[in-house]
Amino acid sequence: MDLANLRWWGWGTLDQSYDLSNRPGFWPFLAANLGVEPGPLAEPVSLDSITLPPTRLDEQVLRSLRKKLGATVVSTGPEARILHAYGKGYKDLVRLRLGKVIHPPDAVVFPENEAQLMELLTWATEHGAALVPFGGGSSVTSGVEPQSRRPTLTVDLARLNRIVRMDVVSQTVTAQAGILGPTLERAVNARGLTLGHFPQSFEFSTLGGWIATRGAGQTSVGYGKIEEMVEAVRIVTPAGVIETRLVPAQATGPSLLEALVGSEGAFGVITQSTLRLHRKPEVSDYRGVMFRRFEDGVAAVREIMQGGADVVMARLSDGPETVASLALNRAPHSPLAGLVTRFGMRALTAQGYDLSGKSCLMILGVEGKRAHVSRHVQAALSICRRHAGFDLGRSVGNAWLRERFALPYLRDTFLGRGLMVDTLETATTWDNLAQLYAALTDALRRAIAAGGVQPYVMTHVSHSYPDGASLYTTFLGQQLPGREIEQWWAVKNAATEAILSNGGTLSHHHGVGADHAPWLEREHDPLGMAALRALKATFDPQGVMNPGVLLVLD
Amino acid sequence: MDLANLRWWGWGTLDQSYDLSNRPGFWPFLAANLGVEPGPLAEPVSLDSITLPPTRLDEQVLRSLRKKLGATVVSTGPEARILHAYGKGYKDLVRLRLGKVIHPPDAVVFPENEAQLMELLTWATEHGAALVPFGGGSSVTSGVEPQSRRPTLTVDLARLNRIVRMDVVSQTVTAQAGILGPTLERAVNARGLTLGHFPQSFEFSTLGGWIATRGAGQTSVGYGKIEEMVEAVRIVTPAGVIETRLVPAQATGPSLLEALVGSEGAFGVITQSTLRLHRKPEVSDYRGVMFRRFEDGVAAVREIMQGGADVVMARLSDGPETVASLALNRAPHSPLAGLVTRFGMRALTAQGYDLSGKSCLMILGVEGKRAHVSRHVQAALSICRRHAGFDLGRSVGNAWLRERFALPYLRDTFLGRGLMVDTLETATTWDNLAQLYAALTDALRRAIAAGGVQPYVMTHVSHSYPDGASLYTTFLGQQLPGREIEQWWAVKNAATEAILSNGGTLSHHHGVGADHAPWLEREHDPLGMAALRALKATFDPQGVMNPGVLLVLD
Repeated sequence: MDLANLRWWGWGTLDQSYDLSNRPGFWPFLAANLGVEPGPLAEPVSLDSITLPPTRLDEQVLRSLRKKLGATVVSTGPEARILHAYGKGYKDLVRLRLGKVIHPPDAVVFPENEAQLMELLTWATEHGAALVPFGGGSSVTSGVEPQSRRPTLTVDLARLNRIVRMDVVSQTVTAQAGILGPTLERAVNARGLTLGHFPQSFEFSTLGGWIATRGAGQTSVGYGKIEEMVEAVRIVTPAGVIETRLVPAQATGPSLLEALVGSEGAFGVITQSTLRLHRKPEVSDYRGVMFRRFEDGVAAVREIMQGGADVVMARLSDGPETVASLALNRAPHSPLAGLVTRFGMRALTAQGYDLSGKSCLMILGVEGKRAHVSRHVQAALSICRRHAGFDLGRSVGNAWLRERFALPYLRDTFLGRGLMVDTLETATTWDNLAQLYAALTDALRRAIAAGGVQPYVMTHVSHSYPDGASLYTTFLGQQLPGREIEQWWAVKNAATEAILSNGGTLSHHHGVGADHAPWLEREHDPLGMAALRALKATFDPQGVMNPGVLLVLD
Repeated sequence: MDLANLRWWGWGTLDQSYDLSNRPGFWPFLAANLGVEPGPLAEPVSLDSITLPPTRLDEQVLRSLRKKLGATVVSTGPEARILHAYGKGYKDLVRLRLGKVIHPPDAVVFPENEAQLMELLTWATEHGAALVPFGGGSSVTSGVEPQSRRPTLTVDLARLNRIVRMDVVSQTVTAQAGILGPTLERAVNARGLTLGHFPQSFEFSTLGGWIATRGAGQTSVGYGKIEEMVEAVRIVTPAGVIETRLVPAQATGPSLLEALVGSEGAFGVITQSTLRLHRKPEVSDYRGVMFRRFEDGVAAVREIMQGGADVVMARLSDGPETVASLALNRAPHSPLAGLVTRFGMRALTAQGYDLSGKSCLMILGVEGKRAHVSRHVQAALSICRRHAGFDLGRSVGNAWLRERFALPYLRDTFLGRGLMVDTLETATTWDNLAQLYAALTDALRRAIAAGGVQPYVMTHVSHSYPDGASLYTTFLGQQLPGREIEQWWAVKNAATEAILSNGGTLSHHHGVGADHAPWLEREHDPLGMAALRALKATFDPQGVMNPGVLLVLD
């Protein structure tokens, strides 16, 4: 870990950021919709100014651990503890910027192999400690934040990052869980293959983290969610090691694989997995399509998904998100701006496209062999046209591609300007999408406004299926200084209530963590919760693993 | 149930059978390979000659049940008990033909609604009875045969067969679990949709049975296994009702849905499910392709599956199964026979196709819109040609389609001739397929020959995936009279051992039942078994549900 380059209080590395120069629409947008004026950024505190609670592990106990695992494997330094105290959710970054690190782990362990990990699990059980597995640390649901009153050690899997086997015949790769997205993707690219899994956190998230949380990549429509990619998984639990069989499908009772995927570190530590791969596409075609109304775009996405065309992405922004996208356009050589110039706002408006909040931008992506791509782009566009979709061309799609991993950096800018900004997501069936969308948007606007703050709420249809789709919502509003966390919880709770009472799932790909855990019984009913608790008791009878995550603390 | 038309001792109904007239190759094939000569069929015993053990439910107990549920819901008649005593496996039919019905249920219950079912579960728990859920009764793994020493009631779901909701927007159907394949398919066909799920048992199996056993249809390559089709499931368990959420995907911890699919009646009774549907294909193209060697065909299937072409079926017989298929050809107007006549055995042989046991027949199926079908047939055939595959044309494929559900009827003929015949299946990754195939074939031949019997073992690659495929094997040999069941178990055990020690799964789509239950720990390891037992204890703490199935009796 290159600490000097790490934006420990925000996203990613210091050598990258969201470049706001040449985006003339940005500040006017913020001023008009959120009452924020350009001004100096509020800087986060410095790392060495943060005061940590003392470690709850006494020297003798730590000595026994260091003796077992080796001194270089265990760290109790303040930097390691701070860097593993939180994930990357809004309230995590708020607290980090303020230097509020209340419940950091008491130590951080970097196991180099499974033997050390097993020693650690035995040691933790004996000493009544809790363990928090940590991959890239990009959780946005408090999945890696210590929750327990017990002495807690975070298990950072950074050193378990080896590729174990490439099976080009079966088109799979077996790798250790701590490997980062780009490393794994480069390795399979070298064999003409691709993961097809590109979550927004791709550069800073790990194989194990994707599986632990049931993540989804931006092209999940074409390549599937992570649970569709996982052929097998290996987990070290306090009750022993469990490894599912390397087979393409089974009819051997309830799926153990699917009981381990999504276990969020609460059953054990995912150490290894085998993923199905895909041929690296020959070409790809990403483009923008503008719709007059959200419902037109939704109808087009649904038709595409229900056998209309093979696409890898059909990401449909609602009106407010389309306005925000336009506001983020670069001035010169900007594709969408260029297009808007070419055809003229007025011309689009004359055709019924209202770019001030009604019309909706879709980013359509098709990948594969050349002939396949041209055929399915045409098929998808023909569906779009039937719903009054206007093809904006590839420059818009390429602009999206260039910045596909960049938006989390912009969040740091927002936080520096005293803005609350967070995202949440859910999924539902097509027949219920409009209702859920309306209820969720309304609940968010009301909850933000209840704090006396001007709300901005925007959504896109992110991951779609033949039977339904997920909604990904971003909400913004000025922070209530000194009450940032309470403000956020009030909004989050209102949104979650709206989701669960309108047929949505608690999460489509962010996971449960500690944030959603109190709501999980609304998703699964008491009997479903009893089943999850029975699994937890089987793998982790002493409650060593990630207490308070997935299942609330007793 | 039309009892007069029911082939209770075999497959299906008496008005259907496998027509052996005009198949001149059939008897010579049996004579040459199994030493069987045509002769009179051995008839099964008559239904009313079977002596049953007395019911273990006394009159008072039955009265209490009838009072709760209504008299027409509970049957203790010998016919009902015999018809629910077994599934449709080889050893089931052997015993039925001989009139050996040792462990029939003590009563059969036909609940008309969930309220009655819940009453029944409470009653069974109070009275220490066991319950066996029963859909179409087509289990081939002893999944519906009472295993317990406790008084046992079979719960026949025939009356829970209603379509609850068609959601044409989300392209799903919600139906009660007892609905039969053809009824459900017709209903969705009327809306331009199809299930895409056509197991060989299709005509006599139910929605609930497909889900309980993790079944796969013949076109699973295109439409998926049943677990990919199930959007939600509802199960009545002794601990209460559990219903998963109607959403397309979730990141809310381990998948409860996937923990209920495959539960084989051991957790509770599946009463309802929502399935994803597909557009009914505009056209379909099924054809035969001949390969010189099995490995050529396997390479072609793998290439097709790994992005080569969108097919719904690529069923590749090995040499012995190809010989058997040819032996079953009809004489006049028979497509394959016609072809063989046209091109001449000699011509094919001259080109290196050895139809006496080396060359391998693939049935290739493509479905969808007209242009899609013609494109992907060409793509698949082009891959086949690269592996020396010879296109036999559509008549061969159509012949297969016409008889796609007929083969189980032929089994009854074999049993009448004193032949042991059974099928088994597994799956593995592509890199391991040749090893598993060789080991399984060898183990079966040896085990059958060990009884002094000439073996015939044949296999096809049935359901394929990008990362691997399932092998479906049929084995034949003369019965050892009086020792039919022991003979079968010796063969079954040898095959299962070969599968599990060569990287195969215990089952790809037949399920666990009671037959595979003792082997399940080899599949899942002790910790995986502990997880399954924990789930069982959650849903069925008293062990009321299908004891001995999935999990062995204590």
